Amino acid sequence: MNIQLLLTGDELMTGVTVDSNSSRIARQLATLGLYIDGKVTIGDRLTDLVAEINRLSDTADVLIVNGGLGPTVDDLTAEALGRAAGKPLGQHPEALDQLETLLARHGLPMNEANLKQTMLPQGCEIIPNPIGSAVGIRLELNNCLVLCTPGVPHELERMLHEQVVPLLRQQFPDTTPLRQSRFHVYGIGESYLQQWIDEALPDWPPSLELGFRAGLPTLEVKITSRAGDSEGLHDGWCTKLHRLLADHIVAVGDGTLEDSLVSLLRQRNLRLATAESATGGEMARMINRVARAGDVFEAGVITSPGRMYTGLLGLEECPGESEVSEAGVRHTVQTLLAGTRADYAVAVYGDPNSGQRGGDQNKGTVWAGWGREGEIRSRQFHFPTGGGIYQSLVAALGLDLVRRALLGLESAPSYYPVGGRN
Amino acid sequence: MNIQLLLTGDELMTGVTVDSNSSRIARQLATLGLYIDGKVTIGDRLTDLVAEINRLSDTADVLIVNGGLGPTVDDLTAEALGRAAGKPLGQHPEALDQLETLLARHGLPMNEANLKQTMLPQGCEIIPNPIGSAVGIRLELNNCLVLCTPGVPHELERMLHEQVVPLLRQQFPDTTPLRQSRFHVYGIGESYLQQWIDEALPDWPPSLELGFRAGLPTLEVKITSRAGDSEGLHDGWCTKLHRLLADHIVAVGDGTLEDSLVSLLRQRNLRLATAESATGGEMARMINRVARAGDVFEAGVITSPGRMYTGLLGLEECPGESEVSEAGVRHTVQTLLAGTRADYAVAVYGDPNSGQRGGDQNKGTVWAGWGREGEIRSRQFHFPTGGGIYQSLVAALGLDLVRRALLGLESAPSYYPVGGRN
Repeated sequence: MNIQLLLTGDELMTGVTVDSNSSRIARQLATLGLYIDGKVTIGDRLTDLVAEINRLSDTADVLIVNGGLGPTVDDLTAEALGRAAGKPLGQHPEALDQLETLLARHGLPMNEANLKQTMLPQGCEIIPNPIGSAVGIRLELNNCLVLCTPGVPHELERMLHEQVVPLLRQQFPDTTPLRQSRFHVYGIGESYLQQWIDEALPDWPPSLELGFRAGLPTLEVKITSRAGDSEGLHDGWCTKLHRLLADHIVAVGDGTLEDSLVSLLRQRNLRLATAESATGGEMARMINRVARAGDVFEAGVITSPGRMYTGLLGLEECPGESEVSEAGVRHTVQTLLAGTRADYAVAVYGDPNSGQRGGDQNKGTVWAGWGREGEIRSRQFHFPTGGGIYQSLVAALGLDLVRRALLGLESAPSYYPVGGRN
Repeated sequence: MNIQLLLTGDELMTGVTVDSNSSRIARQLATLGLYIDGKVTIGDRLTDLVAEINRLSDTADVLIVNGGLGPTVDDLTAEALGRAAGKPLGQHPEALDQLETLLARHGLPMNEANLKQTMLPQGCEIIPNPIGSAVGIRLELNNCLVLCTPGVPHELERMLHEQVVPLLRQQFPDTTPLRQSRFHVYGIGESYLQQWIDEALPDWPPSLELGFRAGLPTLEVKITSRAGDSEGLHDGWCTKLHRLLADHIVAVGDGTLEDSLVSLLRQRNLRLATAESATGGEMARMINRVARAGDVFEAGVITSPGRMYTGLLGLEECPGESEVSEAGVRHTVQTLLAGTRADYAVAVYGDPNSGQRGGDQNKGTVWAGWGREGEIRSRQFHFPTGGGIYQSLVAALGLDLVRRALLGLESAPSYYPVGGRN
């Protein structure tokens, strides 16, 4: 079984765009136990596209083409596939139908550029795209299944999940899917985590692949095995790992820290309010990316610590313009609880220029306060890192402190352990 | 002149690692006016590597190989190049010399794994790597200049800058660098934009390449030409395009809408406050991603329209819990101006479930209010789209309305024009 990937787009050749789509495709195929054998990337030139489609389809069983399905003149995939297959383009009724439905839903008229997207090689089938105007194309060529997919990442993601993966599962029923268990961990660095697992679980079985993927703000730990091979082994070691990482695990599978928090708040019928200074809205933004987060998100405020009181929260004059203090975060949590309909509140104050200027005594210091009426906690943390990483880690800190409190976990977690475990 | 890139590494095939090296290489070559014509990525398999080195060097003038120069068993580039060229590996004295110097500098002993890195195809030249143990390799094969470079990003970056670029400049003195002009547009869809340019500038010269890249929330328009070819032409048509797209252009080059807004506020010495409902903090977050945005960002609040008053802003009881209204946004802007130290304020209210539930009368309706003391404007917009796209587009709407107001541009922009221009 040979699977090839052909990516097209001048922006991928000039360095303007970093290709993340091939990673999306590889991850989705991996769920079926399928791997990409080779990947070719070329610019938007018709002759090159035709030549590569011919060359790759000649030896591959599956060729996935990504990009070039848009409405503009530099979108050439349909044309190239048509030429490679010797099938002239014609208006595809189903493609037209899908496009009309999509445009009608958005109250938009059809235009020439969109119509181009319905001109597909004769005899091909479409792969529906429920959220974009670029329909996918499916065609047999040189005994190879050619699947053309859109370059827009969220459209690709959805088409892979809903169309391409089921199609490949049907076409290749004999592959053994991988079994994967994934944990998302907050508050431990990658090199420490690796060392910790090595020491705590020295007899880790070689048939279970252990992988790490550094994300922001969490780190993904992945256990992979061939389905059928070692079901019991897989489950047993997952349990051991889960027990080891314990309360550092903030989510499993496709979940995220913010998903876990929104679920917890929903289960307990609580509404949360947030206040943040150095994170610029990232804490509120993380929660509000979760679907229907409005059910549990009451309100968020973003400003410098000093202005939190005198401006937004209508309090008396406060100590200093930008003071990052314990009194400040506790006061803010109290005010959010009193002044909004929130049942639970969290405030995270840090130096907004953290990581941007050097030699600052206060650099990386974060004060967090969190809790409910009559039960407010506070603690100081250090995040000696810069810019976007700082904002992401500190925003997640606020959410994880609330998650821990709601679950009754230790209130003084040992984030980013260096020497030892505690 | 044909330049090919061959990337090797299992991690690039499984989706674990997103390839950013080819973007590094492309950007460095672009400074010489050189472009990568094709890019092939394969896993760490010797036979595939040998075959691809042979195939690509057969037609290319330059083949840049990236990765596979490390000390471990899955690093196969030297071996593959040797087989492709029919040159057995032998210890390269200069490579040994360089490695000894590097190890001595770090006080490290030589080990077996490192020694493997000095075994190179006979007759090759090395490309020095001053900061890592993986030396680069240079060899003529099939009339093609083959350059093997390390996969570690910062080692690659330095080798490109200090060795590869000067070498290529020397070998190909006749190349002309490309000239690129980039505009970022907000409020026009890709298919409409293409049609608009086609109609308004029908005699667009073929020597100026026009490209589009759909991003969120803006769309990039790019004009590319060969330097020297058509300087006047490039400038002239850039001006025409600029005049056509006019106030829809929110940034140029590497800039973004939020960069432009932060600069404008800074120039005018103004501080901004934001209020948002359905965008969950994205508007504040966009601004606060810009370096030193704290200079111009006064405060942000996020909650449902109704709770904006009674909770955060300390106002009298408001009309309805989630009412998206003109009175609401105007009132909020007024309150932000009165209650914070902001000179300018913007409020954007929309349905938080927009795009998630169907059949809603109010679906996609957005009320925006913006302005300064005594000069508050408001307008209704429609964004009939869903989820994350909605949040991104609506957050950018708020920022673009402020940008337009500060620049004295039309206050009722024709965003997402459908039938005609206005």
